[in-house]
Amino acid sequence: MIVVMRKDAEKNDLEGVIERIEGVGLDVHLSEGVEHTIVGVVGDVRHIRPEDLQVLPGVLRVVRIMHPFKLASREFQGETTEIVLNGCSIGGSAVTVMAGPCAVEDRETLLETARGVRAAGAQVLRGGAFKPRTSPYSFQGLGEEGLQIMAEAREETGLLIVTEVLSPGDVELVSGYADILQIGARNMQNYSLLHEVGASDRPVLLKRGMMSSVEEWLMAAEYVLSGGNHRVMLCERGIRTFEGYTRNTLDLSAVPLVKSLSHLPVVVDPSHGTGRSDLVPAMSRAAVAAGADGLLVEVHPRPEKALSDGPQSLTIPGFEALMEGLDPVARSIDRSVAVAGCTG
Amino acid sequence: MIVVMRKDAEKNDLEGVIERIEGVGLDVHLSEGVEHTIVGVVGDVRHIRPEDLQVLPGVLRVVRIMHPFKLASREFQGETTEIVLNGCSIGGSAVTVMAGPCAVEDRETLLETARGVRAAGAQVLRGGAFKPRTSPYSFQGLGEEGLQIMAEAREETGLLIVTEVLSPGDVELVSGYADILQIGARNMQNYSLLHEVGASDRPVLLKRGMMSSVEEWLMAAEYVLSGGNHRVMLCERGIRTFEGYTRNTLDLSAVPLVKSLSHLPVVVDPSHGTGRSDLVPAMSRAAVAAGADGLLVEVHPRPEKALSDGPQSLTIPGFEALMEGLDPVARSIDRSVAVAGCTG
Amino acid sequence: MIVVMRKDAEKNDLEGVIERIEGVGLDVHLSEGVEHTIVGVVGDVRHIRPEDLQVLPGVLRVVRIMHPFKLASREFQGETTEIVLNGCSIGGSAVTVMAGPCAVEDRETLLETARGVRAAGAQVLRGGAFKPRTSPYSFQGLGEEGLQIMAEAREETGLLIVTEVLSPGDVELVSGYADILQIGARNMQNYSLLHEVGASDRPVLLKRGMMSSVEEWLMAAEYVLSGGNHRVMLCERGIRTFEGYTRNTLDLSAVPLVKSLSHLPVVVDPSHGTGRSDLVPAMSRAAVAAGADGLLVEVHPRPEKALSDGPQSLTIPGFEALMEGLDPVARSIDRSVAVAGCTG
Amino acid sequence: MIVVMRKDAEKNDLEGVIERIEGVGLDVHLSEGVEHTIVGVVGDVRHIRPEDLQVLPGVLRVVRIMHPFKLASREFQGETTEIVLNGCSIGGSAVTVMAGPCAVEDRETLLETARGVRAAGAQVLRGGAFKPRTSPYSFQGLGEEGLQIMAEAREETGLLIVTEVLSPGDVELVSGYADILQIGARNMQNYSLLHEVGASDRPVLLKRGMMSSVEEWLMAAEYVLSGGNHRVMLCERGIRTFEGYTRNTLDLSAVPLVKSLSHLPVVVDPSHGTGRSDLVPAMSRAAVAAGADGLLVEVHPRPEKALSDGPQSLTIPGFEALMEGLDPVARSIDRSVAVAGCTG
Repeated sequence: MIVVMRKDAEKNDLEGVIERIEGVGLDVHLSEGVEHTIVGVVGDVRHIRPEDLQVLPGVLRVVRIMHPFKLASREFQGETTEIVLNGCSIGGSAVTVMAGPCAVEDRETLLETARGVRAAGAQVLRGGAFKPRTSPYSFQGLGEEGLQIMAEAREETGLLIVTEVLSPGDVELVSGYADILQIGARNMQNYSLLHEVGASDRPVLLKRGMMSSVEEWLMAAEYVLSGGNHRVMLCERGIRTFEGYTRNTLDLSAVPLVKSLSHLPVVVDPSHGTGRSDLVPAMSRAAVAAGADGLLVEVHPRPEKALSDGPQSLTIPGFEALMEGLDPVARSIDRSVAVAGCTG
Repeated sequence: MIVVMRKDAEKNDLEGVIERIEGVGLDVHLSEGVEHTIVGVVGDVRHIRPEDLQVLPGVLRVVRIMHPFKLASREFQGETTEIVLNGCSIGGSAVTVMAGPCAVEDRETLLETARGVRAAGAQVLRGGAFKPRTSPYSFQGLGEEGLQIMAEAREETGLLIVTEVLSPGDVELVSGYADILQIGARNMQNYSLLHEVGASDRPVLLKRGMMSSVEEWLMAAEYVLSGGNHRVMLCERGIRTFEGYTRNTLDLSAVPLVKSLSHLPVVVDPSHGTGRSDLVPAMSRAAVAAGADGLLVEVHPRPEKALSDGPQSLTIPGFEALMEGLDPVARSIDRSVAVAGCTG
Repeated sequence: MIVVMRKDAEKNDLEGVIERIEGVGLDVHLSEGVEHTIVGVVGDVRHIRPEDLQVLPGVLRVVRIMHPFKLASREFQGETTEIVLNGCSIGGSAVTVMAGPCAVEDRETLLETARGVRAAGAQVLRGGAFKPRTSPYSFQGLGEEGLQIMAEAREETGLLIVTEVLSPGDVELVSGYADILQIGARNMQNYSLLHEVGASDRPVLLKRGMMSSVEEWLMAAEYVLSGGNHRVMLCERGIRTFEGYTRNTLDLSAVPLVKSLSHLPVVVDPSHGTGRSDLVPAMSRAAVAAGADGLLVEVHPRPEKALSDGPQSLTIPGFEALMEGLDPVARSIDRSVAVAGCTG
Repeated sequence: MIVVMRKDAEKNDLEGVIERIEGVGLDVHLSEGVEHTIVGVVGDVRHIRPEDLQVLPGVLRVVRIMHPFKLASREFQGETTEIVLNGCSIGGSAVTVMAGPCAVEDRETLLETARGVRAAGAQVLRGGAFKPRTSPYSFQGLGEEGLQIMAEAREETGLLIVTEVLSPGDVELVSGYADILQIGARNMQNYSLLHEVGASDRPVLLKRGMMSSVEEWLMAAEYVLSGGNHRVMLCERGIRTFEGYTRNTLDLSAVPLVKSLSHLPVVVDPSHGTGRSDLVPAMSRAAVAAGADGLLVEVHPRPEKALSDGPQSLTIPGFEALMEGLDPVARSIDRSVAVAGCTG
């Protein structure tokens, strides 16, 4: 971190800056410029924030040199994290496909979907038992019953299961069923929840908040990592912009960007990212071409009857068509789509 | 709600739409247009969402006619909600001022601040004991000790206290100390938490999410109201935009807008809204002129030593100057600033 | 400007940076930090951009210390620019009110509007003869005939007139009629047009682009100022965000912000800023309380018949009511609303 | 278009709505619902805007059923427009690559770049002679001299040339040199300029404004098309969001979206879209996988010496590497990259 003093800063302003830096155990390096004195902060700057120094008298600008995340950074770990679960690897050379309904609605529909996506080549089954809904009057999910249905589908199909956990108090319950804990976009900065999944032994799929910068997203991952849980995968799901034809704006540039900043695997959710099933196949291909390690796709046997997110759900035949076109794209960049059920 | 069918919709498409609507206990009203058949949905449309119908075969557009919130709406309750606490009224003709530090840092500093803002005319003391921080390495608040210090400040000064609750599991603890429970911007869509404060007997100050629409904000209030807690006040605190000179973009048009849509009182936080203490006085005056029922202002005796949000905190003399200029603005629109400590 | 070199930068990287800086006639000041070498750029840094240096081998970060605008800055001119026209002062202690229809539609309607806003207390008449319309099928304005009607209204009422110029080729024509040339939001970065009005002797009202940062806005003003035209006023008219209940998000914090950065007067357009006539009065009062030097308000005798922007236009009685409430707000911050027609 | 009347609308409100619709030569179709009367507008609704009806007394909501663009729509022309120039086809099955520097800086550098991108496989040379620069103190381009240099490069390499036109008055001059006229993002709603290029016989590459919706972008294309120029290609170049690690957020979902709404070819500019040359290759591949008909890529032999946009420019070897990886991606979706110089 570098502090640029104002031209008219006085001696005791400079002393105040130095005192504040040294007060948290860091060192300073002074440099008298022609117009401005510059104070370099030496040491582990995670213990001081630019704002802490910006507010001091005589300070013109504070410039952060290092990223504020550490455990999530490529500097900390050069090699990409590979999360291996039951023979499936997320973050390896093969692209993982996670598919299923927005919400678990009933046993029959879920099993039908699970069989369909397994047959089409998915490795992981998605489905929500606890649903964060904008309206208190909307379907809120089946709760534990939904988790039991997911577990039954895993039993039958061999698919891994990923499902959302909404509340710190539910982490233990959900961990009893799920292979991967999903933190939803609305909870990306729910630090109590991040703290709790940081203490869990389940891998975490951390969605980007719809209003979150890449830096804030990596800081949220840092919460989980610093809690001791190193199996974090990041999921880009679209950010909010002014554009109205799509539900969100899918930020695919976040894929190569995050992969350059961090060693964590990156998954893309083109369903929430666009909100329109007609755009999902093209954006799935684009996500793979951009370097995504996985996809999270909404599939429902009858989207027109889905209790949530019907407009962005592929049918099972639609998902089959997507899967057929996906492997050639993966191979064009020297990757592949993972084998169905990871059993191969 | 109105469903516009495609020109080429077939008879069984129309039947599917009717079936879906009637399936949730609503009625339909059909109208054959020159080009499009239109299906009107008759009844309490909170039980069906536009997306549920949009996805049906043959549907061109679904148009919502009513707002999705009910208990929060002016249609439901014409008169503005007035929240009366210990002689203080929020939502009445006088403007309530809530002031204090971002975080409770230590007993002496908090008491000094409380005395200062009480003397300058505030009615409510703000201060965080549980802090949602972007970095896991930043100060996370004093927890219950912070609440005890807040309670001591109330004891001494007579100020009401408002403080943030981060987790459903903490609602009971925080309610044991706080007069008003604050839901922070990052938790506006933390539905587990909204559910819990909805069951509490404490008034709730619900901050707008930094990328939440006014409609989503009112739907979040609807969660609390539908839980049985009718004492909700809304707090505009700036939304996230591309502008970089300010921390957020304070959306003051939300004040008259929300007051036309809803009966709930609206408070404005110019400190987070701008992130710059130099802009707080002008934006406080503007908020009052726009019709805000209250202000939430960060004040710290020594912003340069604050553990968080120093750059946006007023000093005590700065706050005194703000308060002096505020009452004339309130009077220019036939309101006033509430009497200090509400004891008058 | 300060260049922070990477830890692993080599000697010839540093030499390359120095060469580039000296190549545009600037000097360098070197400082060896513990981890990074820092290169200070000494001289008029408008001649080099951070990007020019950022791309050089071995460079980690480039930090701009000075604002990129000069003539528009408070450092260049401490005193607020006051633009005096026919006895009206924009930027003085009185708040100027500019009012009128979006577009000049016909002679009778414009004259009726002009008389109405003059009687209610306006000083300037707005009205567009050349209209930038999203659709090529919408009314594009009356062109020169519209300007003639505006001039006739000035003749009769004594109001000054402000009207938009869309194209460099029209500046001369429009200057023949207008007292103030308006540059619309869509043209804020139309540099050919800015260049042309910079050479004009007419004052310029420069609207903020709906996607423009405050810095870009001041840089657009810099274009006009550097062309030799010093009579520029800035107009905040709302920026584009995700919020859908309003047409734009009126950024009132831009008022005190710009007034701290620049000596130019700031006008607020609450009509485009909100897109809703019901929000215009509250936002007009808020703009004045925030420190605006003027308002630009859409008024139409029959908004329901307006060829454009009806939903955001006040009726003449609506404008009269606004004006009545405005002066007390101005007086509450020790200003006033200017006398009608500036003749007082 | 459908007008939903308020429950409490009176008879003369309804008559007013009907009168307004019939007044522009359209017909109405009335439908009495249980709660609301609905007025359907029958005929070519481009002649009336929702706002025109929204403002009428008694109107609750106006709903547009049709897109406001016509000539640009897939309904108007089902087949994708193919723009054939000198043997190159833009919008056909092969992906066109346009590459070159941001600005033409000098003859030698441009020729070197042209030879480099031609050898690597490009079909079109990009390069700006008239530059829209944020600062009046930055390099503004070589003007006509730059056009002459571009023409010389075409002569030597056989590449087509695309270059930006900034002002209506320059369209004739630029058309004398350019094969394709580029309308930059800042000028997407410069209607005088759109009008002028609409009357030109040169194909137009229309960049999306950085904060323009897809609908506004297609309406801008409609201006050019309705002027009689049918050879329009659209160029996505990133939109402005809150994310700061990238210069813009490249909205690749716009590619399949626009291609479903419109018959016009879509080009992607990953250089401006990200602002970072390290992200350009991945985003180029993603753009092709998403279905883009072309790419517009900034290439400079020595980005560190570029007068503009160095940080987002590929070197010539960098561009060669990109081109090598691109064809396999195109083939994975049954397309190909066009043959160098279109001569094959």
